[in-house]
Amino acid sequence: MNNIKKNITQAHQRIEKHIHNTPILSSQNINKITGANIYFKCENFQKIGAFKMRGALNAVFSYSKEKVKKGFVTHSSGNHAQAVALSSKIAKTKAYVVMPKGASKIKVNAVREYGGDITFCDNNEQSRIEMCDKIIKKTEANFIHPYNNYNVIYGQATCAKEIYESKKFLDYIITPVGGGGLASGTILATQAFSPSTKVVLAEPLNASDAFESFKLKKLIPVNNPNTIADGLKTSLGDKTFKIIIKGAHEVVTVTEKEIINSMKLIWERLKIICEPSCSLPLAVVLKNRSKYQSKSVGLILTGGNVDLLNLPF
Amino acid sequence: MNNIKKNITQAHQRIEKHIHNTPILSSQNINKITGANIYFKCENFQKIGAFKMRGALNAVFSYSKEKVKKGFVTHSSGNHAQAVALSSKIAKTKAYVVMPKGASKIKVNAVREYGGDITFCDNNEQSRIEMCDKIIKKTEANFIHPYNNYNVIYGQATCAKEIYESKKFLDYIITPVGGGGLASGTILATQAFSPSTKVVLAEPLNASDAFESFKLKKLIPVNNPNTIADGLKTSLGDKTFKIIIKGAHEVVTVTEKEIINSMKLIWERLKIICEPSCSLPLAVVLKNRSKYQSKSVGLILTGGNVDLLNLPF
Repeated sequence: MNNIKKNITQAHQRIEKHIHNTPILSSQNINKITGANIYFKCENFQKIGAFKMRGALNAVFSYSKEKVKKGFVTHSSGNHAQAVALSSKIAKTKAYVVMPKGASKIKVNAVREYGGDITFCDNNEQSRIEMCDKIIKKTEANFIHPYNNYNVIYGQATCAKEIYESKKFLDYIITPVGGGGLASGTILATQAFSPSTKVVLAEPLNASDAFESFKLKKLIPVNNPNTIADGLKTSLGDKTFKIIIKGAHEVVTVTEKEIINSMKLIWERLKIICEPSCSLPLAVVLKNRSKYQSKSVGLILTGGNVDLLNLPF
Repeated sequence: MNNIKKNITQAHQRIEKHIHNTPILSSQNINKITGANIYFKCENFQKIGAFKMRGALNAVFSYSKEKVKKGFVTHSSGNHAQAVALSSKIAKTKAYVVMPKGASKIKVNAVREYGGDITFCDNNEQSRIEMCDKIIKKTEANFIHPYNNYNVIYGQATCAKEIYESKKFLDYIITPVGGGGLASGTILATQAFSPSTKVVLAEPLNASDAFESFKLKKLIPVNNPNTIADGLKTSLGDKTFKIIIKGAHEVVTVTEKEIINSMKLIWERLKIICEPSCSLPLAVVLKNRSKYQSKSVGLILTGGNVDLLNLPF
């Protein structure tokens, strides 16, 4: 077994007791509309409502007992914050979560529900980092980056591993790409467990740093992106970029309108609740029908934490 | 095997190839909130998006080949219309669906998608019946009542049967009650397959004919009910009333606010889309916490056909 396969397998063994092996759903109707055979991996049903639980938990469990005792720290206004809070709770240690002052009440409350100790910072990168450093100095807690961390990446890779274990063959697997944790985890899992499957990454046109970076083979961060897919506003990190540049089949961008239409289709036909970010992979299939005609395509629905009082349709 | 058990088992054998054995979901969070162990039977994932498919299909399949050839007719502005249309399509025959002129475009289109031949009528009971009679005279098609029909009731009973086949024991099973097809089917399935489980029926306070009829032991139809749970506006029929009066443990009413709060909780925590009618059973548990404390409770989520552009929250 090569190293990557081993790392992903170990990650899975570490976390599988505490996560859901989420269901894979299909819709005859969506297959009829697209002409493809689509398998939706439903991470919206995952603990904390998103795949982020996999990576955070693997990162937490990868530390020595001594280090775990010091607790964990991260900065996030989204699902990673909840994931680190719950993972720390499972590991019976403390989670320090730095969130911007403007973070939504729903998300703040969710982190509190899982026992996270929240510190608010200004809404910019520098303030987040300074606050984390302060906490680390004081507590010696371990920092868990939301995506630019190999243990996080191996954790996210377990999602695609579960798909390959339950489906015989996929021509394509499509994931959204933001910071690239799930994208690079999916690439590694595909190389390890289903090397002939092509990995396609779906990105908002309005936050297309991965698309640009992939095309120019150079890491180009995005500036002030404005997209409804709020989980995908972040830019690739150096670790995720390296994996993506080598292993992605292509990066495809979709418009805000395509994201919303695809999201509505999933809600209406699959009868499940997923975040805007989830709907990009289906949007990619819908705008490239001929390419995916009669193909088996796995799509990762990344999460279901959406504000029901503020829907885009 | 007694007759009812046999009828339900035969219904299940007849339809199981064409329906989904829908998943049963749980939420640690909802269990924490309620103090009960709740199992949600997700008929929102059923074909046509609702349990009505079971009853319609069993009714269609119960006719002789000769009669099937003549086609089927029903009046409905809701899920039963789609269920008869798709069931007729599966049986390779025609469906004549009488719908009120005011029926929503979404529902009209859904019936058309399944190949239903729609005739519009005025929005009152008399006009519906007259139009059905006209069609029957002309075509000799077979009328399928939405609930006051034993084959429909046996079909709906297969839903609770699936729950009992997958769960060892339930203290309670709770279904919403409108016309009483699902309610009486659930009562019969419970008597046949899990006789010590108590069947509780949940009804909107604003359409409380089953509650009144059960209390006074006399069939009392509802007048112009006004509830967001539009699947539950209908009154019991004589057949469903007889089964309910004998077999229900109790009928509990809930307010519109309780329905909406419970619906939002299901959407947020289970990450699935269900109709307002679905949320009544959970509303019953929420308002009677002490009764359901530490009990195993099965709740039937009846359907997921909801207009996303017109949500109550």
